[in-house]
Amino acid sequence: MKKIINDVDAIVDEMIEGIVKSHPTILKRLPNTTVITRVDAPVQGKVGLVSGGGSGHEPAHAGYVGKGMLDAAVIGEVFTSPTPDQILEAIKAANGGAGVLLIIKNYTGDVLNFEMAKELAELEGIEVAEVIVNDDVAVEDSTFTTGRRGIAGTVFVHKIAGALAENGVSLTEIKETCDNVIANIRSMGVALSSCTVPAAKKPSFQLEESEIEIGIGIHGEPGIERVAIQQADDIVTTLISKIQEDLDFTNSEIAVMINGLGATPEMELYIVSKKVHEWAKSHNIHIIQSWVGEYMTSLEMAGFSITFFKLNNEWKDLLKQDVATLKFHV
Amino acid sequence: MKKIINDVDAIVDEMIEGIVKSHPTILKRLPNTTVITRVDAPVQGKVGLVSGGGSGHEPAHAGYVGKGMLDAAVIGEVFTSPTPDQILEAIKAANGGAGVLLIIKNYTGDVLNFEMAKELAELEGIEVAEVIVNDDVAVEDSTFTTGRRGIAGTVFVHKIAGALAENGVSLTEIKETCDNVIANIRSMGVALSSCTVPAAKKPSFQLEESEIEIGIGIHGEPGIERVAIQQADDIVTTLISKIQEDLDFTNSEIAVMINGLGATPEMELYIVSKKVHEWAKSHNIHIIQSWVGEYMTSLEMAGFSITFFKLNNEWKDLLKQDVATLKFHV
Repeated sequence: MKKIINDVDAIVDEMIEGIVKSHPTILKRLPNTTVITRVDAPVQGKVGLVSGGGSGHEPAHAGYVGKGMLDAAVIGEVFTSPTPDQILEAIKAANGGAGVLLIIKNYTGDVLNFEMAKELAELEGIEVAEVIVNDDVAVEDSTFTTGRRGIAGTVFVHKIAGALAENGVSLTEIKETCDNVIANIRSMGVALSSCTVPAAKKPSFQLEESEIEIGIGIHGEPGIERVAIQQADDIVTTLISKIQEDLDFTNSEIAVMINGLGATPEMELYIVSKKVHEWAKSHNIHIIQSWVGEYMTSLEMAGFSITFFKLNNEWKDLLKQDVATLKFHV
Repeated sequence: MKKIINDVDAIVDEMIEGIVKSHPTILKRLPNTTVITRVDAPVQGKVGLVSGGGSGHEPAHAGYVGKGMLDAAVIGEVFTSPTPDQILEAIKAANGGAGVLLIIKNYTGDVLNFEMAKELAELEGIEVAEVIVNDDVAVEDSTFTTGRRGIAGTVFVHKIAGALAENGVSLTEIKETCDNVIANIRSMGVALSSCTVPAAKKPSFQLEESEIEIGIGIHGEPGIERVAIQQADDIVTTLISKIQEDLDFTNSEIAVMINGLGATPEMELYIVSKKVHEWAKSHNIHIIQSWVGEYMTSLEMAGFSITFFKLNNEWKDLLKQDVATLKFHV
């Protein structure tokens, strides 16, 4: 295992320092925490938005902190939920008096810790609501999850919530819209290789030289099946067919995210995107906007996920609204 | 070798189709070529900017096409220079009547083919100038290069040239500024693993399990030495010391790029960035702006490069000027 690190116990701390030193006009660290916020947080009168989870998924979530998206990202150890006390600090830092929305990916540890922090914040008089993202259609229940996992589609929830919050919409309304948005997002991924959690010092799983895993989770949780490597177009068809089976996108306008898991060259992501666009066209699905790149990674895992987001006119506009984050651009 | 491709002979064509299908409001393909241009190219009265080279370095260079940067990117086979006829098409497509600047990375094939295309364009009455980027301090002469190689620092040249062109500056002046910019940019990289050119079907080189190569080229050309993996801070110190030895950045204001070569997690790039910022501070070097991410990759190579760009007040402003490309943001 070769990693560009110093002390394995300090990687999250050093990463956070690196992020805020690199981008001091956009981000700051809440002292003595693993929380990164907008430099101008809390924004008075605006609903605060907090997301986060284990690290190792960068640019999620600090890359989505900034005007028009999140107010704070709370960062756990690699693939490990942040603790309730850290989440509480993020809530307090994001609270501008109009309440705080927690955007949680559906993993048991995350849900537990974010909900505990929510209760603690409410005891301190902060109004807190939550939404739970579960966009991954691959499997029902998984290693760390009851129900479906939350993966790359989460970034679209950040964007819609962020635009609404910036426009002065109330906590109750943002929560309601986000629940509706989540119901219209579906994702699925595939892995060509494992990643190695630094502290574990060995790969999370093993794939044979010619094997891929369909439906992989972003922590390497098992997917649906392991099959021989196929042509890109066939892999794409497998993933989208499962997505489309779960929610019919026919005759809809959609946004698409082709998300690299860490080690997949952009060249391959665009070969995937070509097929996604052709498939959508032949199924009378209208892609309004596409994001192709690394948005929700699994350290250096090779592979990708596809996300479809069924849009209405309001969401189309909100997706295009200005944003000032490091890693999401319109 | 697992790759997400269909036909190994069609990967460049399919990638280009994927790029323009994904981003039709920013980019278009010049029919029957491997050239991607701004949707509104040529922009009348503006100096046209053309860059490019072999593919496999994405997001370079199509990711830097758009208002405020390049007018056209011409794309060769993987790690192979585009042919003069394709470069000529790019020049013609970028020519808005004020001449065209070629931004060439210093590889023998690229220089030869771009200069041949320049001559062909001049025969057709188009005014063409060129600049050659050679920012890599690792080695003098290399597998595909006489003199130093051009690597990630090229992206800063695109940005400065793009801002000047957008501001109506003349071809002669842009060329002169870019030559001066290039003289103030230094880069160096390190690899932890090789990449595999799809058509070759095997890794370009082999590194032992605990070995890294200091000074690697973006096509896997040999660097300075192979050493045992070290702490991140020590690797960074090695790279920056060599950069600083070559051009003294003390008491300067600089822009920094920490560039992932393909498979390196963003977490590790930020650990690198932390050290770069600390080192710069302790050497009285003032980092004005930082870019951390994948800007000039080598397929799925693991590793990174560091670029320092010594700024003057004009360049500081030009770096911050608005830009509308896929992969470079200010």
